[in-house]
Amino acid sequence: MHLEPDLAEDEGLLDVLGWFRRQAHTEQRFGAVLRQSIDEVLDGQRTGRFDLDLLESTEKTYLGTKVEIVARSAFQLDRGDDMDYSIAGHEVDAKFTSGTKSVNWTIPIEAMGHLCLLMAVDDRRSKFRVGLVRITDDALNAGRNRDGKRSLNITGRARIRWLVAEGDLPRNLLLGLPQEKREAIFRASDGYRGGGNGGQLRTNELFRQVQEQIVDRNTLVTVASQEDGLKRARDARKVLREEGILILGHQNDHPRIARALDLPVPAKGTFVAVRLAPAPTDTHRPCVEIGRTRYVAWREGDDRVVAPSLY
Amino acid sequence: MHLEPDLAEDEGLLDVLGWFRRQAHTEQRFGAVLRQSIDEVLDGQRTGRFDLDLLESTEKTYLGTKVEIVARSAFQLDRGDDMDYSIAGHEVDAKFTSGTKSVNWTIPIEAMGHLCLLMAVDDRRSKFRVGLVRITDDALNAGRNRDGKRSLNITGRARIRWLVAEGDLPRNLLLGLPQEKREAIFRASDGYRGGGNGGQLRTNELFRQVQEQIVDRNTLVTVASQEDGLKRARDARKVLREEGILILGHQNDHPRIARALDLPVPAKGTFVAVRLAPAPTDTHRPCVEIGRTRYVAWREGDDRVVAPSLY
Repeated sequence: MHLEPDLAEDEGLLDVLGWFRRQAHTEQRFGAVLRQSIDEVLDGQRTGRFDLDLLESTEKTYLGTKVEIVARSAFQLDRGDDMDYSIAGHEVDAKFTSGTKSVNWTIPIEAMGHLCLLMAVDDRRSKFRVGLVRITDDALNAGRNRDGKRSLNITGRARIRWLVAEGDLPRNLLLGLPQEKREAIFRASDGYRGGGNGGQLRTNELFRQVQEQIVDRNTLVTVASQEDGLKRARDARKVLREEGILILGHQNDHPRIARALDLPVPAKGTFVAVRLAPAPTDTHRPCVEIGRTRYVAWREGDDRVVAPSLY
Repeated sequence: MHLEPDLAEDEGLLDVLGWFRRQAHTEQRFGAVLRQSIDEVLDGQRTGRFDLDLLESTEKTYLGTKVEIVARSAFQLDRGDDMDYSIAGHEVDAKFTSGTKSVNWTIPIEAMGHLCLLMAVDDRRSKFRVGLVRITDDALNAGRNRDGKRSLNITGRARIRWLVAEGDLPRNLLLGLPQEKREAIFRASDGYRGGGNGGQLRTNELFRQVQEQIVDRNTLVTVASQEDGLKRARDARKVLREEGILILGHQNDHPRIARALDLPVPAKGTFVAVRLAPAPTDTHRPCVEIGRTRYVAWREGDDRVVAPSLY
């Protein structure tokens, strides 16, 4: 193993760093841990929320606990005696923060001398970081918040060993949409309230506004504000077919069509919408034959047609 | 409507009380809201926890927020301008508490003059209560906690109008088990770690220890500590058949067998285990014919046999 010189003496930190680096898909698993934790606390299915800025303060505090729990479960970590985890024989505390700066972890007094697993997300930029640091007095700012916690100072931040320096967080589709598209989706149910109808109207609009990209399950339950977001996606097919839009899933002929049109291929529980147009003769654009007709993905200037029925 | 004399003047409270009383299945829905909120924060699938006493303080605080969110969603309540909800045109704050006393709601200063929807659970006794009260200075104790919140005094508590005075909370199966049964279940995986194997061993033991009663999905994911608790239940069938135990679900011939043996009939996602014995001739005990054999539920003194295969 390559030992960075300034860490050569901190064997505990190296043990823990090594332990995580030996796990399979470490970066991908941390990304999934953070995405899952955020989505559960946003609770989009019940609240329609997709933006961490809308969390109440009790929820923001709890998000750190949820991340600690989900990471423990994902990596099957043991509990420590004093800290959250015991990893490779060392006590490690989990600390989480979110937002654009994402360096302001607050360190409790009990963590002094111990290792901290630092996790941070920037949901707007779809980025996350995971690092390890040994907490010492000279690594912390002197000031304390009202819970007696202190933040890492420049020395402390410089000492962080990054396990994932800049990871790709699975994206938050709704947060990343242009505002006018998002507003169109949530406005689609104006005049309706709650349950089935409104959720269906918003889901229909989602697939009008968001095409040729993966729509994940959490986006569907948030837009539908109901458990059966996947059914709303399937039910949108009938309406949108009239407008020339196919909603491709993971089954039957759907993956072939997605691949032929050079679209991302939906995994189970996800969908990709695409508006079709009859393929111009001798086109070089990606084409797919459905029934006996050849189609391309619709572009400005193409004819508008009813989309074919799929199985 | 029958107006209690001391409430005749509080039209707002009566409006809100009346609104909830006109909803379908109000008691059952509040029971489901509280059960669901508790189970989500316990997060048994990831933590193996089934006892609110094991929550960390951030989780206890968050549980009140979760209850507020789940109740809003269940009853499709609007947000208030100042309080959590707007119900029948009145501002209403949601307050939750748990434990054996379950009267120590802490009331924030902003609620003064407003209505509070008071919810309380006692998970050990499987009971819950929901009431409404108008917050006035003379209804609160003088002392404040460090967040400046005050609790209801005797006057305030006497003034609560109960919407559900003593409701049955859907039970917490693991919490209600005798300790030796619970220990046997969680000990079944000693020597194993995490995933598939250990979860299967604990699930097998669950159905040895808990028979002739409904085992719900949340109990299964908590015991299995994995998402696919239902699959663990189905996979337990093969092993336990050798020991004479059937695990009945909601499909095929299963409901008939449950009914014939006078057992609760499992809904989708739930199971009932029963150990069978050959029916003694001329027995008055509930019998079921499976294949060409008549069986009873096994009792001390009955023969031990291999259970029949079911579809």
